Amino acid sequence: MDASLYVTQLAGAARKAAGELALTNGKVRDDALRACAAAIRKAGDELQEANRKDLARSEQFGLTGAMVKRLTLDAQRIDSMSGALEEIARQVDPVGKTIVAYNRPNGLRIEKRRVPIGVIGIIFESRPNVTSDAAGLCLKSANACILRGGKEAIHSNLAIAAALRKGLASAGLPPQAVTVIDTTDREVVTAMAGAQGLIDLIIPRGGAGLIKAVCEAATIPVIKHYDGICHVYVHAEADLKMAETIAMNAKCQYPAVCNAMETLLVDAAIADAFLPGLCAKLLDAGVEIRGCERTGQLVGDVKVATEEDWTTEYLDLVLSVKVVDSLEAAIGHINTYGSHHTDAIVTGSIGAAEIFTAAVDSASVMVNASTRWADGQRYGLGAEIGISTDKLHARGPMGADDLTTYKWIVTGDGHVVE
Amino acid sequence: MDASLYVTQLAGAARKAAGELALTNGKVRDDALRACAAAIRKAGDELQEANRKDLARSEQFGLTGAMVKRLTLDAQRIDSMSGALEEIARQVDPVGKTIVAYNRPNGLRIEKRRVPIGVIGIIFESRPNVTSDAAGLCLKSANACILRGGKEAIHSNLAIAAALRKGLASAGLPPQAVTVIDTTDREVVTAMAGAQGLIDLIIPRGGAGLIKAVCEAATIPVIKHYDGICHVYVHAEADLKMAETIAMNAKCQYPAVCNAMETLLVDAAIADAFLPGLCAKLLDAGVEIRGCERTGQLVGDVKVATEEDWTTEYLDLVLSVKVVDSLEAAIGHINTYGSHHTDAIVTGSIGAAEIFTAAVDSASVMVNASTRWADGQRYGLGAEIGISTDKLHARGPMGADDLTTYKWIVTGDGHVVE
Repeated sequence: MDASLYVTQLAGAARKAAGELALTNGKVRDDALRACAAAIRKAGDELQEANRKDLARSEQFGLTGAMVKRLTLDAQRIDSMSGALEEIARQVDPVGKTIVAYNRPNGLRIEKRRVPIGVIGIIFESRPNVTSDAAGLCLKSANACILRGGKEAIHSNLAIAAALRKGLASAGLPPQAVTVIDTTDREVVTAMAGAQGLIDLIIPRGGAGLIKAVCEAATIPVIKHYDGICHVYVHAEADLKMAETIAMNAKCQYPAVCNAMETLLVDAAIADAFLPGLCAKLLDAGVEIRGCERTGQLVGDVKVATEEDWTTEYLDLVLSVKVVDSLEAAIGHINTYGSHHTDAIVTGSIGAAEIFTAAVDSASVMVNASTRWADGQRYGLGAEIGISTDKLHARGPMGADDLTTYKWIVTGDGHVVE
Repeated sequence: MDASLYVTQLAGAARKAAGELALTNGKVRDDALRACAAAIRKAGDELQEANRKDLARSEQFGLTGAMVKRLTLDAQRIDSMSGALEEIARQVDPVGKTIVAYNRPNGLRIEKRRVPIGVIGIIFESRPNVTSDAAGLCLKSANACILRGGKEAIHSNLAIAAALRKGLASAGLPPQAVTVIDTTDREVVTAMAGAQGLIDLIIPRGGAGLIKAVCEAATIPVIKHYDGICHVYVHAEADLKMAETIAMNAKCQYPAVCNAMETLLVDAAIADAFLPGLCAKLLDAGVEIRGCERTGQLVGDVKVATEEDWTTEYLDLVLSVKVVDSLEAAIGHINTYGSHHTDAIVTGSIGAAEIFTAAVDSASVMVNASTRWADGQRYGLGAEIGISTDKLHARGPMGADDLTTYKWIVTGDGHVVE
C-alpha cells in the first residue's frame, strides 16, 4: 500500500471534520460524547468478540501476562470506557476559554481565546481503552483525531472506533472526526509524522522505542511522553517520619507506573539516622536495594548500584539509593540522571524547598508529597491525555485544555495603524 | 570543522549558564540588561567598525538596497538597540508568574508556575539588532541563547555579542548566557537543530528557505515564523467607508511587512458599490491590482489574477482581489490559500463576525480593524521575539512570556497516595 496516500486521504477527511467541529458549541459535543458512551455500551458483545481475536494472537506477539491483562476488554472495562466518556462530557468546555483579554489605550479590544488545534494524531500501544479516552478528549476539545494503536489490539481498536463513529453520526457530527488506522503497516506511522498541513500534532504514547521512532520521522510537532525516573530527596532538615512514609509510598504503592520513585537520595547529615530503618522496611516490602558505597556501609548487605542504575526506570520493586553531601549535590544528580518527569524533596526548610523547586528542571516538583501525585486526575484536570516530558506547549499532566491552541481575536471600530 | 562537536561544546556551556540564570531573581537580570545596554553604547565605535566590514562585503553577497539598509548600524540604531534592552528591563518579570494555583480537596497545593525554558537557539538573517533584541528577551526570561545570524552580518553580530558578554560579566552573570556562533559553516544550523538535550527550542526567523531547512533537520522543537498572506474580507453588511479605510491602511501603510494585506475579498452583494471606488484609490496610491474575472468586469482594466497570486506574499504595492459569493466562500478561500497569520473581516453583523472568528484558522483574526495591528508591541506585549505561524506553544505575536515553560509545584504535608 501507499502509506503516504492512505494517510493523506484519511487526514484530509479528518481535517474537514475538524472544520465542522470548530463551529460546534459545547452542548453539541457533550451530547455526542454521551451518544458515543451509549454506543460503546450497546456494542459490548461486538467489542468482546473483537477483543477475543486479539487475545487469541497475544502469544504470537509475545505479550507478557501484564500486557494481556491490559489488552483484555471485559464487561466491566467496557462499562468504565463509557463512564469515562460521560465524565469527559461533564467537564467545562475548554474551547472558548479566554486566556487574557484587555483593551488597548486606543480602544482596540484584544482577546487571547482557546480554540481547537485541528487534527491530532495519537500513536499508542496495548491498552484499547486509550482509543476511546483519547477520542473523547479530542472530541471534547473540538479536535478531530487519527488514532494508531498497536497491532496486538487492532481488532479491539477498530470495534471501539466503529461504535464511536455510530455515536458521532447519531449526534449529527461527522464520523470522520474519529479515525482509527485500519492497517498495521509501520510505514503509516512515518507518514503520519510527516503529514504537514494535514495533522497538527502527534502524541506518541508507549515505549521509548516508539517515541524515538516517531520523533525521528516527524516534521510536525510532537509532544513526547517519555519515562519517569523519579527521585525523592530527603533533606538534612526533613521530618524523618514523614520522609519514610513518602519514600515507602513513592516506591511501593504502585511501582509499575511512571510516577513511582526509582532513586532515593539521602542527605549525608541524616543518612545514619534515616537509612537503616527505612531500608529494613523496604526490604520487608520486598524491595531490592541497589546502593552507593555509603549506603552499603550504613545498611549492610545491599547490591552495589552501577552508573546504569541511576538512569534506569525499573517500574518494579527495585530502588537505587545514594547518599549525597548537600542540596546542591542532590539537584545535580537529579538534573543529570533524571528524566525531568517528577522529583520530590522532603524538608522542613523553606529555603531548601525554594532552591529545589527553582533548580530541579522537571515537569512536577513536589515538596513533602509523594511523586505518585503527578497525575492529571489527582491535579484536578479531569481526564488526562498523558504526562508530557516535553517543555513546549504542555508539560507534565495534560488535560483537555492542553489539546487547544489559541487565537488572538482583535476587535476594533475601523482601527487603522498610523 | 566538526559542527556537531562545536555545537555540543557551546551548548554545554550555555546550558550551565542557563542553570545559573534559573536561580537569579528579576532584579539581577534587569540590572544585567541595563549593563548590556551600557556596554552596547560604550562599544559604539567598535560596532560601527565591525559593521563597515560587513557592509564592504554586501555586494559580494548580492544584497539589495533594502537589505543593505537593514544591515547598517549607525549611531542612532546603536542607541535604539540599547534603548530596547532598557525597555525590556522595565517589563514585568515573566519568570515566576503563576498560571493557575489551587488547593485540592485533601489540602495538597497545586501551582502551575512559569519557569525559563533553558537554552534557546535563534537562527536569523540580516538585521544585526535581532542579536541584541533576542538576547535581551532571553535574558529577561532567564534563558541562555545561542544565536546564529546570517553570514552577511557576522562581524556586526560578533561585535554586539562581545559587548553583551561584557555587560553580563560586569553584572556578575555568566557570559555564556549569550553565545553567537562565530562561523558561517552551514553544518552548524543542522547541528543546532539536532542538539537534543542541549538546546530546548529553535526559533528560525527569516526567509521560507531558511525555516524549511531548519524544520527538516530538526529533532528538537521549532517555532516557525513563516509568511503572512493576510486577507481583508468586506462582508455584505460592512460599513463601506470603514472598509475602504481599513483596506487602504492594510495594503499601503507599510506593504513590506508580514501583516500587510495581500488579498482583498469582497462580498458580491456590495462589490459594485465598493470595488470601483476603492480600486481607483488603490491605483492612485500606486498599487498594482490583480483581480478575478468579476473584479475585472467591475473595475475595468486590471491584470487577471492567477492561481499563484492567491498564495503569494507580495510584500509590495501589489494586491490580489476576489469577489466572493458569501461569508462561507470567503472563509473557504482564506483557509485554503492563506498562511494562517492574520485575517480580517469588516462587518456590522455580530453573527458574521462570530462565524468568521470561529472558522478562520489564523493566529490573529480581526474584526473591523486593519491587519497591520498584528504585532507584539501593538498587542501590548512589550518587545516581541517574532510572530509565530505555528499552533503549538505560542501562536501569533510572541513576547517574553512565550519564552517560558511552566512547572507544576506541588506542596504537601506528607501527602501520600492511598
